[in-house]
Amino acid sequence: MSSTRKLKIGIVGGTGYTGVELLRLLAQHPSVQLTAVTSRSEAGQPVADLYPNLRGHLDIRFSEPDIATLTKCDLVFFATPNGVAMKTVPQLLDANVKIVDLAADFRLHDPLVWEQWYGIPHACVNVLQEAVYGLPEVNRDAVAKARIVANPGCYPTAVQLGFIPLLEQGLIDPQHLIADAKSGVSGAGREAKVGSLLCEASESFKAYGVAGHRHLPEIRQGLNQVAGGDVGLTFVPHLTPMIRGIHATLYGRLTVGNAGDLQALYVERYRNEPFVDVMPAGSHPETRSVRGSNVCRIAIHRPQNGDTVVVLSAIDNLVKGAAGQAVQNMNIMCGLPETAGLEQVALMP
Amino acid sequence: MSSTRKLKIGIVGGTGYTGVELLRLLAQHPSVQLTAVTSRSEAGQPVADLYPNLRGHLDIRFSEPDIATLTKCDLVFFATPNGVAMKTVPQLLDANVKIVDLAADFRLHDPLVWEQWYGIPHACVNVLQEAVYGLPEVNRDAVAKARIVANPGCYPTAVQLGFIPLLEQGLIDPQHLIADAKSGVSGAGREAKVGSLLCEASESFKAYGVAGHRHLPEIRQGLNQVAGGDVGLTFVPHLTPMIRGIHATLYGRLTVGNAGDLQALYVERYRNEPFVDVMPAGSHPETRSVRGSNVCRIAIHRPQNGDTVVVLSAIDNLVKGAAGQAVQNMNIMCGLPETAGLEQVALMP
Amino acid sequence: MSSTRKLKIGIVGGTGYTGVELLRLLAQHPSVQLTAVTSRSEAGQPVADLYPNLRGHLDIRFSEPDIATLTKCDLVFFATPNGVAMKTVPQLLDANVKIVDLAADFRLHDPLVWEQWYGIPHACVNVLQEAVYGLPEVNRDAVAKARIVANPGCYPTAVQLGFIPLLEQGLIDPQHLIADAKSGVSGAGREAKVGSLLCEASESFKAYGVAGHRHLPEIRQGLNQVAGGDVGLTFVPHLTPMIRGIHATLYGRLTVGNAGDLQALYVERYRNEPFVDVMPAGSHPETRSVRGSNVCRIAIHRPQNGDTVVVLSAIDNLVKGAAGQAVQNMNIMCGLPETAGLEQVALMP
Amino acid sequence: MSSTRKLKIGIVGGTGYTGVELLRLLAQHPSVQLTAVTSRSEAGQPVADLYPNLRGHLDIRFSEPDIATLTKCDLVFFATPNGVAMKTVPQLLDANVKIVDLAADFRLHDPLVWEQWYGIPHACVNVLQEAVYGLPEVNRDAVAKARIVANPGCYPTAVQLGFIPLLEQGLIDPQHLIADAKSGVSGAGREAKVGSLLCEASESFKAYGVAGHRHLPEIRQGLNQVAGGDVGLTFVPHLTPMIRGIHATLYGRLTVGNAGDLQALYVERYRNEPFVDVMPAGSHPETRSVRGSNVCRIAIHRPQNGDTVVVLSAIDNLVKGAAGQAVQNMNIMCGLPETAGLEQVALMP
Repeated sequence: MSSTRKLKIGIVGGTGYTGVELLRLLAQHPSVQLTAVTSRSEAGQPVADLYPNLRGHLDIRFSEPDIATLTKCDLVFFATPNGVAMKTVPQLLDANVKIVDLAADFRLHDPLVWEQWYGIPHACVNVLQEAVYGLPEVNRDAVAKARIVANPGCYPTAVQLGFIPLLEQGLIDPQHLIADAKSGVSGAGREAKVGSLLCEASESFKAYGVAGHRHLPEIRQGLNQVAGGDVGLTFVPHLTPMIRGIHATLYGRLTVGNAGDLQALYVERYRNEPFVDVMPAGSHPETRSVRGSNVCRIAIHRPQNGDTVVVLSAIDNLVKGAAGQAVQNMNIMCGLPETAGLEQVALMP
Repeated sequence: MSSTRKLKIGIVGGTGYTGVELLRLLAQHPSVQLTAVTSRSEAGQPVADLYPNLRGHLDIRFSEPDIATLTKCDLVFFATPNGVAMKTVPQLLDANVKIVDLAADFRLHDPLVWEQWYGIPHACVNVLQEAVYGLPEVNRDAVAKARIVANPGCYPTAVQLGFIPLLEQGLIDPQHLIADAKSGVSGAGREAKVGSLLCEASESFKAYGVAGHRHLPEIRQGLNQVAGGDVGLTFVPHLTPMIRGIHATLYGRLTVGNAGDLQALYVERYRNEPFVDVMPAGSHPETRSVRGSNVCRIAIHRPQNGDTVVVLSAIDNLVKGAAGQAVQNMNIMCGLPETAGLEQVALMP
Repeated sequence: MSSTRKLKIGIVGGTGYTGVELLRLLAQHPSVQLTAVTSRSEAGQPVADLYPNLRGHLDIRFSEPDIATLTKCDLVFFATPNGVAMKTVPQLLDANVKIVDLAADFRLHDPLVWEQWYGIPHACVNVLQEAVYGLPEVNRDAVAKARIVANPGCYPTAVQLGFIPLLEQGLIDPQHLIADAKSGVSGAGREAKVGSLLCEASESFKAYGVAGHRHLPEIRQGLNQVAGGDVGLTFVPHLTPMIRGIHATLYGRLTVGNAGDLQALYVERYRNEPFVDVMPAGSHPETRSVRGSNVCRIAIHRPQNGDTVVVLSAIDNLVKGAAGQAVQNMNIMCGLPETAGLEQVALMP
Repeated sequence: MSSTRKLKIGIVGGTGYTGVELLRLLAQHPSVQLTAVTSRSEAGQPVADLYPNLRGHLDIRFSEPDIATLTKCDLVFFATPNGVAMKTVPQLLDANVKIVDLAADFRLHDPLVWEQWYGIPHACVNVLQEAVYGLPEVNRDAVAKARIVANPGCYPTAVQLGFIPLLEQGLIDPQHLIADAKSGVSGAGREAKVGSLLCEASESFKAYGVAGHRHLPEIRQGLNQVAGGDVGLTFVPHLTPMIRGIHATLYGRLTVGNAGDLQALYVERYRNEPFVDVMPAGSHPETRSVRGSNVCRIAIHRPQNGDTVVVLSAIDNLVKGAAGQAVQNMNIMCGLPETAGLEQVALMP
C-alpha cells in the first residue's frame, strides 16, 4: 500500500452507538476515507442528520447495504446486530475485503457453543474457524495476518485484560474466578427499549443476567487460552446509571504462598501495550478517565495482604470495548501504526 | 407511656443527609414530636430554610446542642460525625434519655478495634459495651430492652442481611466471602468535598477504599456473630453515579453437596420481617425500587448451578441504611409498632 | 357517603408513569380502595410485578378494561393515551361513575381547537363541554360539583399558577407573555422511544416543539379565563436530564408605573391554597424540593427593578402536574379533605 | 515564527476545569509545547496525577507561579479565579508575553462597572483598556493584533452569538431582550461547594442569580457594541443537572413588519465562521452535539409566525465557552490556522 493512498473503509450498520463511535474515530483518522456507511432504515439520509456531532466532519449519506459497493472497500466494519455479519462476510472475503466484525458472530470458536448462546445455527462455520479473536494484547500477530477479526465484546475486553497476567503466571485458582462488572447504559445499544429509558435506568443500579450472559462463554474461551485449560468463572454484569464506561472488579484466590510483586508483574506484562495503563499501586481507576479514549486502566490490590487479589479494570465500552479496539485491529491488519487515529485524550470532567 | 402522649424526640446534628432524612420520616410519624434539632453552625435558622422540602411540614429552628434541652427528650438521635456522640451520650443516659446513634461510635464492641479504624481512643468504653447493635433482623429482642442502640452502617446493613441465612445454616465457606458493594453518592454525606461534586462523581464509576474501609470490621463483627466464628471477608465498596441506593453483590462458595432450596431458605428466614423482601427466584432488585423506603430487597442466584452462590441485596442507604432503620430501632425501643412512620411506598420512577 | 366506607376507585391504563404514580398515592390514601387497575397488555399480571416499589403495598392484578367492572367504581381515573378516555367516559357517566381524566381528552373546551391539535375529531363533544378543567386554585367550586374533571397538563399547571396573580390584577401586558419551561424526561412517558433513552437524554439539554406544543392552547385557554380576554403567549418547552420536575421561568412586562408589592400579591393570592407555596422574596425554587410531593413552589423577581417580572414556578410533573392533582381533584369531587393522601414530604436529597 | 518551532505556552492556574480542558486541547495541538503549568496548591505534583485522563499524554508537573518561568513563554493563559490575572499581567506584557485571560479581569471596558460587579478596584486600568474582548466572530481583526485578550464568559458567548445577527440588522426591539440560559454544573468550577455536590445538583433544576449575575454587564456590553446603543436585557441563568453544556433560549420582539428570511440571515452571517453552525430551519440543537467541541450550534424559530423570535444557542461551556475559545484566540493572535487543535468531533452519546 502506498503511503499516501487512504484506505477505503465501509461500515455496515452505522446507526447504532458502536456505529457512530466508529464514525467519530474514522472521521479523524489520518489514513482512511469512508466510502460507504450502510443502513437499511436510514438509506439516503445524511449521516450528520442523525448524529449532529458529525456536522462539518463527515459529508456522506447512509446507503443501502449493497454488496457491490462494499466489495470496493479495503476493509469493512460490521456494526450490526448479532447474526447479520455472518450472512455477508463470506462474499466480502472472496472479494479480498478485510473484515472487522464488532458483533458476536465470529467470537466463539465452537459453532455449537455459539448456537447454544445465540439461538440460531452459525451460517459460515469455516469462516468462524478462520476468524481471529481481536484482543491485540493477546493475539497481535494473528490479527496482523488475519482476513477477518472478531472484535471482542466490551465486558470480555475489560475482564480478560484484568485477569491475563495472573492466569498466565498460574498465580490464582483458575476454577473460582469472579468477575463483578458494571456497565454504562450505552452497552444496551440505541434500540428503543423500556429498560434503557432515562426514567428506568438513571438513579438506579441493578444486576442483570446473573443466570447467564452471552459474554460468559466468550470470556471463558479467552481465559482458557491464557490459562491453558478450562477455567471456572462467575460473571455478574450490572447496569450503572451513566452513558459510557465499564468497570470490572475481579477477584482471584492466590494459590502460591509467595505470589511476588503483583504490581511489577502487571507493569511488565503491559509495558509495551499502547492502550493498557497499569496505574500506580493503590490506585482506583475511574471510568471517566477513559471516556472517549481507547485506554484500559488497571489497578491491582491485595487487601489486608490476604489471599484474595482484587483487580480493577476500566474501559470506555464504546471505545476499547468496541469501536476503538476495532480501529486498533484495523490498524494492525492494514500495517498502519497501531495508535493511528486513537490518541484522543479522555474527556474529563 | 400513655397511648396518646407523643414521644419527645431530639436530633443532634440535623444538617447532614441522615439528619434531613430523619426529619422527613419523623415529620410524618404519628407518635412523635420533634422538640429539638441541634446544629452548631445553623443555630437559629428555621430547619425548613435549609431543607425547603420541609416547608409546611416542620416549624422548628435549629438550636445549639444544649444538654438541658436534650435531657427533656424521651429519645435522642445522633446524626453527627464519628466521634461526637460518645462525648455526650453518657450524660443523656444518666438522665434516662434513650439513644440511637447513627454514626459509628458504638458499632464495634472491641474498643481497640474501634481505635484502630477510627484513629482515636474511645471515650466511653463502658457504654460501648452496653450498646446494642441495631440490626433488628438479628438483635430485635436486645434492641427492645436497650438504652442505647448503635444504628448499623449502610454497607453493613445490605451485606449482613444478604449473607445471614447462608451463614446461619453453615452452607458457605465462611473464610472466603466476597462483598462487592456499590453506593450512591449520598453515602459520602453533605460535606463539601471535591470527590462528591457532580462533575467528579457523575458519569463515572470507581472502586474506593479497597485496601480497607471502616465498614469492614463492622461487617465482620456482625457476620462472626451469625457464623459462630471468625469469617474471612473481602469487601470492595464502589461509588456509583446516583444519589441514593446501595446494591451489594455477594459471593459465597457452597460447602455442602446438597445445599437444598436456597430460595425457600431465604423466604423462610425473613418471613416475618416487615422490612426484608425476598424477591421471586430469578429476580434482580433495582435500588430505585426501595428509594425512600425502609425495605431491603434480596434475590438469590446460583449461576449455572455451580458451587458459587450470588446474593443481590438492595437498600436505600439513607433509609434502611441509616435514618429509616434508626426510626425502626426507635419504634422497637419505645414499644411502638415497628412499622410506624415507615410505610412509604418507594418513589419510582 | 358514610364516613367509614372507602371509595371504590378504578384506574384505566395503569402501566404508565402517571398510572404508577396514582397507584403510589392511592395505596397510601386513607379513604379509598382500588378495585380495578386495567391494562390490556398486562392483564392478569400482579401490578407489583411491573412496579416492585408496590410489593407489599398493593395486592391487585391488572385486569382487562371491562366496562362492567368499572361501573362498580365510585370514581375512575383515566391514565391512558390521548383519545382513549373519550370513547368510554360517556358510558361511565351514565352509570353515575365520576371521572378524572389525566389525558388531554377533556382539557380544551372548543372541539375544533381540540381536533386541530390532537388530529382527530372529538368523540363526545357534549361531555367535553360539561367537563371542568381541574385546576383547583381557579376552579375549585366547579370541581366540587363536577361529574367529570379534565386534569391539567404538567406544563399548564406550572405556567398558569405562575402567571395567574399578575394576570388577574392586570399588571402585565397580556399580549407578550413568555413561558420558558423545562421538564424532566418522565414527562415523555414510559413508552420506548429513542429520544427518551438514558444515552440520548442524559448529559444534554435541548428545546423541543418550539413551533407549537399541545400544551400551548391549553395554557392559553386557562390564561384567557383569568385575563378576561385573549392572551399572546410564547411557550418553549425544554427537556432537562432528570426524571421528575418542571421548572417554568415566566416573563411578563409590567404595564403600570407602580405595580405595588408583587411578593405580597402572590402571598395573598395563594394564602389558603394547601399546595401552592410562595417562597420568600429572593428565592429560587429547586424542582427537587417538590419531588414526590403535590406542591407548586413559586418565587417572584423583578430584576434590577426593571419593567420585566420573572416568576419561577416548580412542580413535580408526575404529582402536582399529573397524579397528585388528580387525587386532589378526586378529594374535592368526593367531599374528602383536599389534602387527604397528599401530605408526603418531598424526597431530598 | 518558523513553521517548525512550537509555541511555548504557560498556564497559570491549571487545576480547575478550564485549566484541565486547556491541557486536554493543548496536549493534542500540533503547534504548541507546554512549558509551565502553575498551581500553588499542587506544585511538584505531576499534572496527570490530578487528571488521569492525561496519563501518557502530558509529562509535566505543576510548578509554583514563577514570573521568570512565565516570561520565557510566548503566550500565557490565565485560568485563575477572578482578580488574580490583573496582578501579574502587566509584568508579562512588559516581557512581550502574550496573554489570554479566561477569567473576568479584562472583560469589562469600564473599570467602574468592573468594580461594581467584582467588588474590588481594578488593578491595572490601562491594560483593561488595551485588552481585546475575544469573541472572534465579532472582533477577529482586533484579536489578531492584540497583546492581551479577555476570553469571553460562557453565558456571554452563547447569548451574544445568538442575538448578534438580529441586533446587527436592527430587527428586534433592543430594549426588551430576554436570555433564558441553562448551564451544566461545570460552570461552577471545581471548587468544593455544597451547591455543586452531585446530591444537591443532580435530579433537580433551578434558576439562580435572577437579581443580577456577573455575566449580565458583560453580555450587555457586547450587545451594545453590535446594536450601536444601550440594550435592555433580562438574563436568567439556570443550573441544569449535567456536567457540560450551555443552552441559551433567546427571545426578541420583531420591530419591523417584514423581517425577511431569518434563517438565511443567520446562515449568511456565520457562513465563514468555522465554529458557528447554523442548523436547518426547525432544528433544536442539543448540548451533547457540541460536547467536547468548539462549536456553537444555533437554530432560529418564529413560533406561529408571530412577532417573537426564538433563538436556540448551544455550546460546551468548557470549550467554546472557555478553553476552546481561548485556544481559538491563541491561534488568531499567533498566526496559526484558527482551527488548529480544535477539530475534535463531539462525543455523542
